[in-house]
Amino acid sequence: MRNLLQIDAKRYWSTVERSGEIGVGRPGGLQRVALTDSDREMRDLFVQWCREAGCAVTVDGVGNIFARRKGEHDDLPPVVIGSHLDTQVNGGKYDGIVGVLAGLEVIRTFNDAGVPTRRPVELVCWTNEEGARFAPPMIASGAFAGVYPLAWVLARTDDDGKVLGEELKRIGYAGPAPVGGRKLDAYFELHIEQGPELDAKGVDVGIVTDTYKSHGFIVDVRGETAHTGPWPMDKRRNALVGAAMLAVAINEIGWRHHGTGGKATAARLVAWPNKPGIISDYAQFTGDVRHADPAVAGKMAEEFKAAVQDCATRANVAMTVASTWTFGDEKFDPDCIGLIREAAKNLSVGAMDIASQAGHDAYHLSKVTPTAMIFTPCREGITHNNNEHAELARTVPGVNVLLHAVLARANR
Amino acid sequence: MRNLLQIDAKRYWSTVERSGEIGVGRPGGLQRVALTDSDREMRDLFVQWCREAGCAVTVDGVGNIFARRKGEHDDLPPVVIGSHLDTQVNGGKYDGIVGVLAGLEVIRTFNDAGVPTRRPVELVCWTNEEGARFAPPMIASGAFAGVYPLAWVLARTDDDGKVLGEELKRIGYAGPAPVGGRKLDAYFELHIEQGPELDAKGVDVGIVTDTYKSHGFIVDVRGETAHTGPWPMDKRRNALVGAAMLAVAINEIGWRHHGTGGKATAARLVAWPNKPGIISDYAQFTGDVRHADPAVAGKMAEEFKAAVQDCATRANVAMTVASTWTFGDEKFDPDCIGLIREAAKNLSVGAMDIASQAGHDAYHLSKVTPTAMIFTPCREGITHNNNEHAELARTVPGVNVLLHAVLARANR
Repeated sequence: MRNLLQIDAKRYWSTVERSGEIGVGRPGGLQRVALTDSDREMRDLFVQWCREAGCAVTVDGVGNIFARRKGEHDDLPPVVIGSHLDTQVNGGKYDGIVGVLAGLEVIRTFNDAGVPTRRPVELVCWTNEEGARFAPPMIASGAFAGVYPLAWVLARTDDDGKVLGEELKRIGYAGPAPVGGRKLDAYFELHIEQGPELDAKGVDVGIVTDTYKSHGFIVDVRGETAHTGPWPMDKRRNALVGAAMLAVAINEIGWRHHGTGGKATAARLVAWPNKPGIISDYAQFTGDVRHADPAVAGKMAEEFKAAVQDCATRANVAMTVASTWTFGDEKFDPDCIGLIREAAKNLSVGAMDIASQAGHDAYHLSKVTPTAMIFTPCREGITHNNNEHAELARTVPGVNVLLHAVLARANR
Repeated sequence: MRNLLQIDAKRYWSTVERSGEIGVGRPGGLQRVALTDSDREMRDLFVQWCREAGCAVTVDGVGNIFARRKGEHDDLPPVVIGSHLDTQVNGGKYDGIVGVLAGLEVIRTFNDAGVPTRRPVELVCWTNEEGARFAPPMIASGAFAGVYPLAWVLARTDDDGKVLGEELKRIGYAGPAPVGGRKLDAYFELHIEQGPELDAKGVDVGIVTDTYKSHGFIVDVRGETAHTGPWPMDKRRNALVGAAMLAVAINEIGWRHHGTGGKATAARLVAWPNKPGIISDYAQFTGDVRHADPAVAGKMAEEFKAAVQDCATRANVAMTVASTWTFGDEKFDPDCIGLIREAAKNLSVGAMDIASQAGHDAYHLSKVTPTAMIFTPCREGITHNNNEHAELARTVPGVNVLLHAVLARANR
């Protein structure tokens, strides 16, 4: 067995731990939502680390940060490693973060060992992956891949009416680099599984071969204000009741497909005026359905659309599907998957094929460049929760696999 | 037939129209929520009008404004006329307002005609009747009547965390007068019906003889955050789903009792984090049930409590009834009702007995002094809506009835 290049585990984990001090949320967790002051603090530190690692740093028009390590043939398209540093409002310290910092550790390891690569290697931190502040999620990798028009992305607003583009400027990350439009050689992303399989099976590396198909919906509900006392039931047009019916209906769709691993979520409901004494005339509902089988996911989406009709009738309100999104059709690249498989084999790391149930920036990237993903374990699959937990010992194998897959690809 | 004293209809309506310019909301409506800048503007004008009418103005510790016209025996307990000048966030120009300004017009009419009264007559504007900003509604008349402890009332917060007591100080209406604790002779309130009966039947004066019994609830729902993608349905504890189930359940309770005039309302639902991508671990639901028959209202309340148990189980969340309130047990005073009936007869005004379906400050006052209410028509019963509409010609008869009922009582 060859003496293969390996990362410095302790150095790697020190960056994950340092990140865990920025934007602290509930005990053990982070609340580092996109384009907040704590996101800026983390970005500033990340840029500093990348520069100290000898990288040239550029920021594009949606705040995606690229750190570039030169290749021997520096005009060749780069091999890119990426993920995100933003979190949910009750997020963990690992989701996205272990992936970005794995990329940094790969570059540091190349530097220390004096390993050149034929192609340049780039590390990217994508903006607002979580969608916790600006919907939809993965919005900035979507802009990079041409899925969303740039102007539309910059005009997204948060729940307080603040505009994505303005907030980018406010934290100093509205960069000059064009968004997308350049050729990449390949894209690799390491991420915690966000599911229980690796943890339960004691396997350290998941090779993502499939993605769950997801359909998301934002539904506008319109009724009429009235007094909660005298106004008769048969005249009421309570938008809150309509939206609540949607929340219940989508949850029932999830249960109907639970036996085959389907999921459906009532994620967000806002109403106006939403006050005691008055019936609400407006509400908005956000939800999604997911299934490993795209045909079943499509059926779940149809069931939800039928529920929209049914709930509108039952609540005597008007409903409009204002926005939809979908992901999970993406196919990862057999060659990139092969490089991950080979790296795991060479490193004698236990690995298994796995499906991704969550959305990832890699989905969008797969549309513009050969792409693959590596999953690492998280305890009991708990995520988007301050109790999210990952172990260094079970994360390091995945980072070494990433290193060798990138090294192999970058030397082609 | 005697030539009875009558109000100046044009002068009266000019005050209602002037009020309709302060805190303008959607077309035709008002958004003059309690303790906002527009509420202050209206209060300042009201105080000015009262002083111009020769009244002594005092403000109590919860911002209730009292304007006093001296009696010949000024040490006798006063006859009080009152209602409120605050509105819902999508309110009309008449709800509460026509009642307060009717009281002002009664005093102006007494002044013009040089009519003394044996007892003093007081006009009161109650703070935050609507509860649109600080729950529960009728909170300041409740404090006056000893239903709610003063410190508790002053500590209520709005949805932005602002405190009632602080907001009172901010707008300059945290007055020095004690809250309640003094003897009143009687309380009269004129209010738009907020129901369709008077309008439909072409009757101008409703004599309130009964009140609908209402039970209100605030329910806290606690679950756990998790990822909307991988987290299996049978592990989910989605607080938003639990609260949505409550909204659907209370609406069904309303329909179950619709045949006998029952109503039940899902009024407010908030969730946290309430974002795409993450399951909410907290939600709060506010709703109420109402019925003319207190026994049926009690049954509806029991049905809701059973629904709380059922929804908690079905959504796999914890639910706690954090707060309840009730009103509508109150009995109005036969003697005061008799004075209204007699005034209507003497004025040859068509009047009918009617039940109040909404809550009113008069409910609390009835616990500390003989109380009665006069209803005037509003178009189609529409209220808590910018399309709320009242006609001068159909309001004036009620104001004249108020005048003569108060005059008779104040001369006893």
